[in-house]
Amino acid sequence: MKNISAVLFLLVALAATSHATCFRNPLRLLTDDDQTSHAECITSPIHLLRPKSGAAGHNVPQINCLSWRLAVETYNLRNWKLVPESCENYVGHYMLGKQYREDCDAVADIAIAYAKNLTLAGDGKEIWVFDIDETSLSNAPYYARSDVQFGAIPYNDTKFNAWVAEGAAPAVPGVLRLYKTLLSLGIKPVFISGTKEVYREVRISNLKNVGYRNWEKLILKGENDTGSAVVYKSNKRTELVEAGYRIVGNIGDQWSDLLGTNVGDRTFKVPDPMYFIG
Amino acid sequence: MKNISAVLFLLVALAATSHATCFRNPLRLLTDDDQTSHAECITSPIHLLRPKSGAAGHNVPQINCLSWRLAVETYNLRNWKLVPESCENYVGHYMLGKQYREDCDAVADIAIAYAKNLTLAGDGKEIWVFDIDETSLSNAPYYARSDVQFGAIPYNDTKFNAWVAEGAAPAVPGVLRLYKTLLSLGIKPVFISGTKEVYREVRISNLKNVGYRNWEKLILKGENDTGSAVVYKSNKRTELVEAGYRIVGNIGDQWSDLLGTNVGDRTFKVPDPMYFIG
Repeated sequence: MKNISAVLFLLVALAATSHATCFRNPLRLLTDDDQTSHAECITSPIHLLRPKSGAAGHNVPQINCLSWRLAVETYNLRNWKLVPESCENYVGHYMLGKQYREDCDAVADIAIAYAKNLTLAGDGKEIWVFDIDETSLSNAPYYARSDVQFGAIPYNDTKFNAWVAEGAAPAVPGVLRLYKTLLSLGIKPVFISGTKEVYREVRISNLKNVGYRNWEKLILKGENDTGSAVVYKSNKRTELVEAGYRIVGNIGDQWSDLLGTNVGDRTFKVPDPMYFIG
Repeated sequence: MKNISAVLFLLVALAATSHATCFRNPLRLLTDDDQTSHAECITSPIHLLRPKSGAAGHNVPQINCLSWRLAVETYNLRNWKLVPESCENYVGHYMLGKQYREDCDAVADIAIAYAKNLTLAGDGKEIWVFDIDETSLSNAPYYARSDVQFGAIPYNDTKFNAWVAEGAAPAVPGVLRLYKTLLSLGIKPVFISGTKEVYREVRISNLKNVGYRNWEKLILKGENDTGSAVVYKSNKRTELVEAGYRIVGNIGDQWSDLLGTNVGDRTFKVPDPMYFIG
């Protein structure tokens, strides 16, 4: 029964991912709102049949990848290092498929409804905190690479930074729509990212290229910003509050974006089954 | 494409739910660890073909029920009143199917690994807070009734209390296993529930009948316990801490079990797509 379910699930994932007879370029998948466009198809970017090294499925405890992802998203699982090898294909299908788009859109819909229902002072001090990676910009095209495997192999700082330096990350579905709605409501976006200051220019051009064109502040990690992500982001939010800003909303893919001090009047978690930052 | 995905998903849900040619009694499904037992089959408890009143799918905004459930579990969606009518079948299949069991088991596995890794003082003051409904005991057999519809119709206090008074709720899969492991480690369980004091005796017999046989305290809601669930549970946890207990863990199906003051060293969220308590 387990096998039948797994096969059927794979069929669902494939049906949701592939609009025709091929996978679409993940970058197009994330940036192109034309659901009917089949241009730039590429052969399976997630390497369905990539040979596994090591145990190859023998004597490895069965992991229910849906349960694993739910545990990640609900913060039951913390400080995890890698996507389980047996869940790489599942995570790949999820990230490149329709469900990730729709999950992000659902978060955006809820956040937009919340923002539209706010009674705003309109004094220019109402801000919304956005994380960048996997929140405002998607690194799915990088994570889809065969040498990255959707987080199933250890993080490589050099490779990831080279990808960041390309400035080619697409917008996360839904979040750009939230951003534009907030601007129209007079709520000012503030980006707080763990990206280092050295990447400021390329991040700015990447953000602008995909549609994030105005913001109150873009806060990146300086040389004196040490400590965990929770501490770093809490410190930066506290500085904002001390400067007279009111954080009416806060959106991130990591719980470390949403916990700590001055988290904001309401927090929103977008999905990220690829990596954990504590 | 949406329809194909939906049909395939339904197939998966059915394959996961039904071990033979029928649905199993939800009470047995939750209490019987014998995966091969097909006894006590009942015809579809979730009324697959129940006619819908009202719009019947016309002109109703499409809801992606997987995204809706993820939004509920991640606390993006708050203060919701009802399961969307279009997600009743989805929630029903989820709750009675294999995925809910496995999601609960995954939470239990993570909590057990955490507990076993603790350095314990063993002074009898280390406690673990358990919520009761949809955490220690499951009301799925009640929610599966045609007059309850898995939370897709408004909550009825009289009917729900009559079900509680039966004392027939099965244990939530996985959580009983966590409970027994904690007892073996010397961590004392404390139940904190929004159930009213008047149901103390029947809750005790219900808990004992399904395997929860020892606890440090069973805290139910007294006449003077007013305020929201977050405030009530925070107050009770604070009383425990002031009495010298250390809350090493806390498990609940509602975010109101896990937020507020003195939440414990670590919190665990078990799934509940049927109702929201704020």
